[in-house]
Amino acid sequence: VLAAPDDIHQLRQTIGHAVSRADLVISSGGLGPTEDDLNRQVFADIWQLDLAEDAEAVYLMRQRFEVRGRTMPDSNRVQALIPIGAKTLQNHQGTAPGFFLERTEQLPALLALPGPPRELKPMFLQQAISLLTPHVQGRVFSRLRVVHLFGQPESTVNEAVQGVFRWNPLVHVGILARNYGIDLRIHARSSSDAETRSLVEETEKRIRSLVPPAWIYGYDDDTMPAAVMELLLQADARLATAESCTGGLIAKLMTDMPGSSQVFSQGLVTYSNASKLDWLGVSPDLLEGPEAPGAVSAEVAEAMVRGLALRTRAEVCLSVTGIAGPDGGTPSKPVGTVFVGLSAFGIVSVHPLKLVSDREMNRNLASLSALDLARRALMSRLRGSLAQT
Amino acid sequence: VLAAPDDIHQLRQTIGHAVSRADLVISSGGLGPTEDDLNRQVFADIWQLDLAEDAEAVYLMRQRFEVRGRTMPDSNRVQALIPIGAKTLQNHQGTAPGFFLERTEQLPALLALPGPPRELKPMFLQQAISLLTPHVQGRVFSRLRVVHLFGQPESTVNEAVQGVFRWNPLVHVGILARNYGIDLRIHARSSSDAETRSLVEETEKRIRSLVPPAWIYGYDDDTMPAAVMELLLQADARLATAESCTGGLIAKLMTDMPGSSQVFSQGLVTYSNASKLDWLGVSPDLLEGPEAPGAVSAEVAEAMVRGLALRTRAEVCLSVTGIAGPDGGTPSKPVGTVFVGLSAFGIVSVHPLKLVSDREMNRNLASLSALDLARRALMSRLRGSLAQT
Repeated sequence: VLAAPDDIHQLRQTIGHAVSRADLVISSGGLGPTEDDLNRQVFADIWQLDLAEDAEAVYLMRQRFEVRGRTMPDSNRVQALIPIGAKTLQNHQGTAPGFFLERTEQLPALLALPGPPRELKPMFLQQAISLLTPHVQGRVFSRLRVVHLFGQPESTVNEAVQGVFRWNPLVHVGILARNYGIDLRIHARSSSDAETRSLVEETEKRIRSLVPPAWIYGYDDDTMPAAVMELLLQADARLATAESCTGGLIAKLMTDMPGSSQVFSQGLVTYSNASKLDWLGVSPDLLEGPEAPGAVSAEVAEAMVRGLALRTRAEVCLSVTGIAGPDGGTPSKPVGTVFVGLSAFGIVSVHPLKLVSDREMNRNLASLSALDLARRALMSRLRGSLAQT
Repeated sequence: VLAAPDDIHQLRQTIGHAVSRADLVISSGGLGPTEDDLNRQVFADIWQLDLAEDAEAVYLMRQRFEVRGRTMPDSNRVQALIPIGAKTLQNHQGTAPGFFLERTEQLPALLALPGPPRELKPMFLQQAISLLTPHVQGRVFSRLRVVHLFGQPESTVNEAVQGVFRWNPLVHVGILARNYGIDLRIHARSSSDAETRSLVEETEKRIRSLVPPAWIYGYDDDTMPAAVMELLLQADARLATAESCTGGLIAKLMTDMPGSSQVFSQGLVTYSNASKLDWLGVSPDLLEGPEAPGAVSAEVAEAMVRGLALRTRAEVCLSVTGIAGPDGGTPSKPVGTVFVGLSAFGIVSVHPLKLVSDREMNRNLASLSALDLARRALMSRLRGSLAQT
């Protein structure tokens, strides 16, 4: 992997280096409309090909502007310039198309993709992969499976799954601390697709036998909010939130998902004391006064979630109050002190958290911890109703 | 810039390549406690140095666990192993310390940093830079200034500022489309600090003369939410939000900032029709029925923001309703149809948006557009009160 800044000399040198050593060069970025988008020109120079405008690309670009009620500035057309002989890869997520040049005797194959991930990824998966397949010889079947865990530090997970790291030389298991939890990445490679698949399955089974089931919230593209949404759908339940220190982050995470309106109906961001009183009916006796437990307390987390459950009638309610930092900490309630209130099918509980990171991570972990509590309550509920049938 | 996967052979090859070509090698990552954290060992091998435990690093690590009420697993101690003779860079944001090795006749200087940006950045800025300074010869003064713009496409900004791209060979101006707007990056380099500074200032002045003032919302580390917070503080005003399609994202963006409780008191995520009625008093006649404008309409955005202003008495209120996608679009209201309601110091207005991206970007742009409307209203207000004094 090579990287170079938007500078014509450094780009020429870096791309030249890649061309001299590889059979296939994949580039990302530098295809936009502006002064510092230079890749197109450097490729044309090195491959000694003239550039010509791709009419379909211009049409698609113009359409993008028209949908927004704007006229396309002429300077955008430079993006539609493609080396003659290259296959254009149309961009349906942005304006700059990519292109592909077949390998020749002197030069490697070239796949030029736009930089923004939201444009690059679909273009690669939907258009580029099929072009690259003929270039791959002596096929190796490779599979990746990611197991997502939450609630334990990396070192604890690492110790629990020691037995799986070297059970088979064709399988590599990696462990990664993410800002959303711990990932175990199972990567298997072999000469048969069936073998690769069974190696991954066997590894996953071994991991599941080594850790408590509740530690695992999902696989591959699963996320904590998606796990909660799936369980809410199964339980035919709705989630409502009342957030203080997380300030809308839980609501944001839930509504990031298409279809979340089926399970998430409403949320409150009661950041001030007055709003906890106005919207949730939290008693002023709990919030203020020398004897009051104060806004960051188990009592207020409980009053918030009880008020929310009463007003919304949602089956699962979460409240969060705490000190995200960097300011606001005291000796008895340092930064990272957080209380989560949970009301699940009529049962109310409060869970203290002690977080030790910065504001962003504290808010993130408080939100994920709250969702994890909802996840565990929903799992218990579903197991219970399964037992009854 | 070179990158390599967590594989001992590829790491050896990549680091070996760097060592043979550079006077200073900077690495990030691979210093953690797990099986695939291999950089420490590869460095020890290539530099032919034994590893020894750094007692302070073990102490700091253990402390991090104790604050959270946990016991440190012994497997964490491997992170405290540092090549003998290296200077340890303690990690105050995570567990793995970094280290620095001075250049020798045979080997380049080595700076090994942990991978997570939240650990790497402070370690680099607070500890590593001063170690690197003696290695930099023939000093060049370099300055970067970023101008943030919102509300115009990249190509429009590009055309407006054409005159600034090549006004001086010591200044490079780059333009970048970010998911939070358009950035103009002014980068000046010269042999004197004063000259570099004045080149940046002159370029910034030229940019300001080429675009309307309202396009620019900030510089360098400024963000749209921070610009709104600053203006709210100046106007001694509070912001409240009622969000449907953005689902709490505006509240999240505001409360990301320390000190936001001074200006942001509360927010509602009224995702369902019932919650728009319950919390904001939006009339059911607007929401349902064959003749009703429906939840995504200028009428409902207006009713939401009026209800919010009435109930919260906040000086600046924002409401957002729309179709973020991918589903829910109709021929008359396609995905990306969004209405923003603004109530600023008693004046109510509604602003339609037509967005053309995916769910995530549509929600992001709807939130930033709403905040941009609040920003412009606050600027007018502050200009007005300035004129009166």
